[in-house]
Amino acid sequence: MAKGEWMWYPQDFAWMLYHKIMHSRRQRESAIVPSWRTDGPYDSVTFRRELTLQKAEKIRFVCDGRLTLNIDDSPDYTVLPQSGEIELSAGAHTLTAGVVRFTGLPCLFVQGETVKSGREWKVQCGNNIWKDAETNGFFDSIKSPNDCALPEKKITYVQRQRVGEGVLFDFGAETMARVCLSGCEGGFVSVYYGESREEALDSEHCETLDRARVDGGKAQMPQEMGFRYIYVVPADDAAEAEAYERCIDYPIAGDFHCGDTLMESIYDVARRTYRLTEREFFFDGLKRDRWVWSGDVFQSEMMDFYTDFNTEVLRRSLLVLGGKREADFHINTILDYTLYWMIALHRYAYYTGDSDFIREVFPRAEQFLRFCAVREDENGFLCGKEGDWVFLDWADIDNRGAVCAEQVLYCESLRCMAELSARCLGKQRTDLMEKADSLQNKIKQTFWTGEKGCFVHGKIDGKLSEKTTRYANIFAFLFGMLTEQERSAVVQNVLKNDAVQAITTPYMKFYELSALAESGDIPSVLQYIRAYWGGMIEEGATSFWEEYDPNVRGAEKYAMYGRKYGKSLCHAWGASPLYLIGRYIAGVQPESFGYDRFIAQPYIGSFRRWSCRLPLREGELTLAVGEGYCIVKSTKQSGRLLLPSSLPFLQGGAETEVVPGKEIIVRWEVQ
Amino acid sequence: MAKGEWMWYPQDFAWMLYHKIMHSRRQRESAIVPSWRTDGPYDSVTFRRELTLQKAEKIRFVCDGRLTLNIDDSPDYTVLPQSGEIELSAGAHTLTAGVVRFTGLPCLFVQGETVKSGREWKVQCGNNIWKDAETNGFFDSIKSPNDCALPEKKITYVQRQRVGEGVLFDFGAETMARVCLSGCEGGFVSVYYGESREEALDSEHCETLDRARVDGGKAQMPQEMGFRYIYVVPADDAAEAEAYERCIDYPIAGDFHCGDTLMESIYDVARRTYRLTEREFFFDGLKRDRWVWSGDVFQSEMMDFYTDFNTEVLRRSLLVLGGKREADFHINTILDYTLYWMIALHRYAYYTGDSDFIREVFPRAEQFLRFCAVREDENGFLCGKEGDWVFLDWADIDNRGAVCAEQVLYCESLRCMAELSARCLGKQRTDLMEKADSLQNKIKQTFWTGEKGCFVHGKIDGKLSEKTTRYANIFAFLFGMLTEQERSAVVQNVLKNDAVQAITTPYMKFYELSALAESGDIPSVLQYIRAYWGGMIEEGATSFWEEYDPNVRGAEKYAMYGRKYGKSLCHAWGASPLYLIGRYIAGVQPESFGYDRFIAQPYIGSFRRWSCRLPLREGELTLAVGEGYCIVKSTKQSGRLLLPSSLPFLQGGAETEVVPGKEIIVRWEVQ
Repeated sequence: MAKGEWMWYPQDFAWMLYHKIMHSRRQRESAIVPSWRTDGPYDSVTFRRELTLQKAEKIRFVCDGRLTLNIDDSPDYTVLPQSGEIELSAGAHTLTAGVVRFTGLPCLFVQGETVKSGREWKVQCGNNIWKDAETNGFFDSIKSPNDCALPEKKITYVQRQRVGEGVLFDFGAETMARVCLSGCEGGFVSVYYGESREEALDSEHCETLDRARVDGGKAQMPQEMGFRYIYVVPADDAAEAEAYERCIDYPIAGDFHCGDTLMESIYDVARRTYRLTEREFFFDGLKRDRWVWSGDVFQSEMMDFYTDFNTEVLRRSLLVLGGKREADFHINTILDYTLYWMIALHRYAYYTGDSDFIREVFPRAEQFLRFCAVREDENGFLCGKEGDWVFLDWADIDNRGAVCAEQVLYCESLRCMAELSARCLGKQRTDLMEKADSLQNKIKQTFWTGEKGCFVHGKIDGKLSEKTTRYANIFAFLFGMLTEQERSAVVQNVLKNDAVQAITTPYMKFYELSALAESGDIPSVLQYIRAYWGGMIEEGATSFWEEYDPNVRGAEKYAMYGRKYGKSLCHAWGASPLYLIGRYIAGVQPESFGYDRFIAQPYIGSFRRWSCRLPLREGELTLAVGEGYCIVKSTKQSGRLLLPSSLPFLQGGAETEVVPGKEIIVRWEVQ
Repeated sequence: MAKGEWMWYPQDFAWMLYHKIMHSRRQRESAIVPSWRTDGPYDSVTFRRELTLQKAEKIRFVCDGRLTLNIDDSPDYTVLPQSGEIELSAGAHTLTAGVVRFTGLPCLFVQGETVKSGREWKVQCGNNIWKDAETNGFFDSIKSPNDCALPEKKITYVQRQRVGEGVLFDFGAETMARVCLSGCEGGFVSVYYGESREEALDSEHCETLDRARVDGGKAQMPQEMGFRYIYVVPADDAAEAEAYERCIDYPIAGDFHCGDTLMESIYDVARRTYRLTEREFFFDGLKRDRWVWSGDVFQSEMMDFYTDFNTEVLRRSLLVLGGKREADFHINTILDYTLYWMIALHRYAYYTGDSDFIREVFPRAEQFLRFCAVREDENGFLCGKEGDWVFLDWADIDNRGAVCAEQVLYCESLRCMAELSARCLGKQRTDLMEKADSLQNKIKQTFWTGEKGCFVHGKIDGKLSEKTTRYANIFAFLFGMLTEQERSAVVQNVLKNDAVQAITTPYMKFYELSALAESGDIPSVLQYIRAYWGGMIEEGATSFWEEYDPNVRGAEKYAMYGRKYGKSLCHAWGASPLYLIGRYIAGVQPESFGYDRFIAQPYIGSFRRWSCRLPLREGELTLAVGEGYCIVKSTKQSGRLLLPSSLPFLQGGAETEVVPGKEIIVRWEVQ
């Protein structure tokens, strides 16, 4: 027998997952409607295949949906018997199979002696444009892709405690799991989930809860939730809880050791945070939204390249962010998020060299460029219009009018699109390059003040802001839009100026610390990581938070969005030490667009002895740095090891070629 | 209490109906997948209303879908109790209601003392573009728009006959009805539907059938089907059948009497055909597709203006033809059908003056113009590309390359769009006018042969067809693209030239006879109607057919598409005598774009005495013409009665103003 596998319309597996997940958010007893239009798969598709059989064979069709089969373009259609099997004579045939499923993914499994489903089939969605069918390794005919889920693993609580009428179970760390209870009394049982102990015990205000009927002392909760604690009511000493954690099982390469316990904990908790939010897509967080947000995905992407280089989850996340129907609103309805998405597409290609995917999504990106173009003001600045959310950050900022940081992001987006077009589509886009250059000039003319030596926040109704914020300065620094002189001014007047409003979200810390690192001040970056992320660890974090203000103490720290426990305590953007360490301590990056070769430029002075393991585009890189030596090994890719030329080398020098499979050692004299 | 009514996202009621109906086609035991992408409603919408209450009131919410309610933009959502009622205090409030329904129409019914659902609510589909909610008179909270159906009427058979193991019931005329049986034996009963007696009795080959379980001697078929006969097996003398016909109940104005029994029958059967296919949309036919096809809708539209002027069904049909997602394939996948749609939009506005609807759909039409533009060949001719169906007619024609008739339709489409833009959007489109003029010149230069004095069929691979077909000549004649000299040539060399391949579908007869009528040869038109449609009546037609060839006799005449009973015997495009009589015998048409006034120019010599009633844009027009007189009355609209100036008038003259409510009589001397 040939090996059949489930097939579907290209990309529709991703759209099915996206639609399902975007609609699974709940807040207490309410289902939450996605905040933006969430496209799903096509509900009606037709598969087609021409083939020639050497001899007659029986072919079995298994359909998740309603099947309409036509053999040899006959005017009559075939109704499959219960067994779903037809017999086809030897010779040339044409099989046409319409599949309809109004929710979920219409998909088909075909298996015969020689004939099978797979990418050799063509499929169309009713527009008569035939594409190759898509598959993704679903070989079991009785388990449709609609039923797929992340691998499940049983976990047990580490502590239990009678509290009032119920029992509090502590699973020891943040998780995303489905809870099963036993030893319950009859009737209904309630489960109050908490990322903190306080939240679980506060049954009136915890963000999520479940009520289930007890059957034979047992009760199963309907879906996995994000939590560390559960408070089960009513329950007594007889009650037991276990949970089934769902986690992706892609191997993680990222690892870091430096002898500094706090730094190692920070790295481990960051990696755990990253892994928990890396699911069917890169989610923002576990407890609350579990949505795909562009601002979050972009940061997860940069962490991905230094943690497990999982391009499938990344590609799928970038795909669904772009949307399927017409681009008539900003991605996630947020102006900045459209721009991050275009930049994220560029970084994807820069790190992976995958032009195929870029060619697929480029038409969408062009739609967004057109959408942005009609939202420019008379100066060509991209402004928020009715229905747009100009977000930037959770902070005290006025985002009306032309916000400088948005223009900097827009300028970078235009350059990213131009480079993608040139490199992946082979089409020069001087129009975009010229637009970007002109925009950059206008940004500097409009928002840079010589007096303050930096960019001010924005311009509303023709009037420049009095206020300086960090955002535009950070982005312009990172995107290489500044002269040497301007860079120094920004470091002095903004990055290291406590008078400028501080950033309090790990989200913007990502960019701020990246800029600080780019400026060469790695010690300050490390000091900050220790203080800020270390602060969360001290507060008992087992994963990093959506927002953290060291000055807020007690249960107050869990509040956000006007709700006592509104804050997510496991948030993707909290994991940025993964990127900061990989990119600026290990100093790893692609040598050029496509990542054919790497550069490793470790920061020598960071710790007395440290080592790390990181993924490259192919294989892994290990680095060990100590007093007077650096050892590097790459499993599959070639690259260059760069060290400060000022070192008094004993073995090797400032620039060393690294070839796959071979350990390179450079030594220098310790002074 | 305020009067609540169901509300939904604008246009989504139409998309719900369209999706449901396009997916209801069956052929014997197979469901047929729609031949083109069939868009449905948005599955997730949010309603919003700001209001101020003088005093506290209770408000009831009924939701067809899953409701998430938020009061006053609270961070907490509201879970409605079973009763679906909230109490709102006096003062200012904001109500936000998310509604999710994965298939069908998400919709909401709100009712309080003063607060109610309705068009004062705003609604959006996740793109943050707020629109006015839509309603359509669904005031019953327990009957959601998702359950709506056309009004039902019980009908009974006129004859029954034992045949073999079953009973054949004849309902006397074509119908669309749901069958209910009684007096059946146990187990399962089969119903074989037939538009002809032959079809119903041919259980192996009839197009549609149902099998249902008998319960207490009774069996109900699941949905309405198109048929005249049903053959019920097994059944004996105890078996009884009744049916519930579903028909639109919009009042019909169209009526015609002329003392000629055959002509009156033709008119009546045409009107019945029209009415049966005028349902949620203008369908092609009852038995088979029950789909919305642009070529059919355009003709139904022209009949509509002379039969019942039902703009709701028309608007809904035109809307869904345009599609909802991106325009990446021709309407119904057929090149000509995109063009008919644009022309149909123009005729809609020309006859109704409804600029609002045109403004709504114009962006879609512009997408199709762009879609067509990229399908032009190097001469600017619109050609079929991969995936396109160049249809024109069921006939022996070669539609590869540049087909002349398609260019004529394209040229008219461009002019229609330009006029719609100017009149309904207030925007001159000289680009489209110039493109049309240039295309018309190229059409004449390329396809007109002086030798034959007409257009040839097309041009394939740079080579002009040897063959002349009627299509391009008819369309160019109708759309006013010909000089006087060219018109005469076309009448002589094509319309009245039996050597040119004859048209055999009522579909193309519509255009051919219109052209003949425009040429002034009404006698030939009437003679043809009598012969062609009269021929179907003689064959026992109770509704007009998809195709009719007087030379085919016996059960052969029911075959089409390679199937014994593939032909539809109740097909919208068969009803064109309605249009031909209204437009060319009664001679009624708008005086100008928008139909503010009418023109009636009755054809005096058609019958000895005849009278008709026709709808106008507002109200009705009655006309009676006999030997020496013409009586005309309009109930609501003003217009002009035009008679041949050559008549020897006794009372009134060649041109008479008609004012509403007043009967006008013009008399002349009979010679």
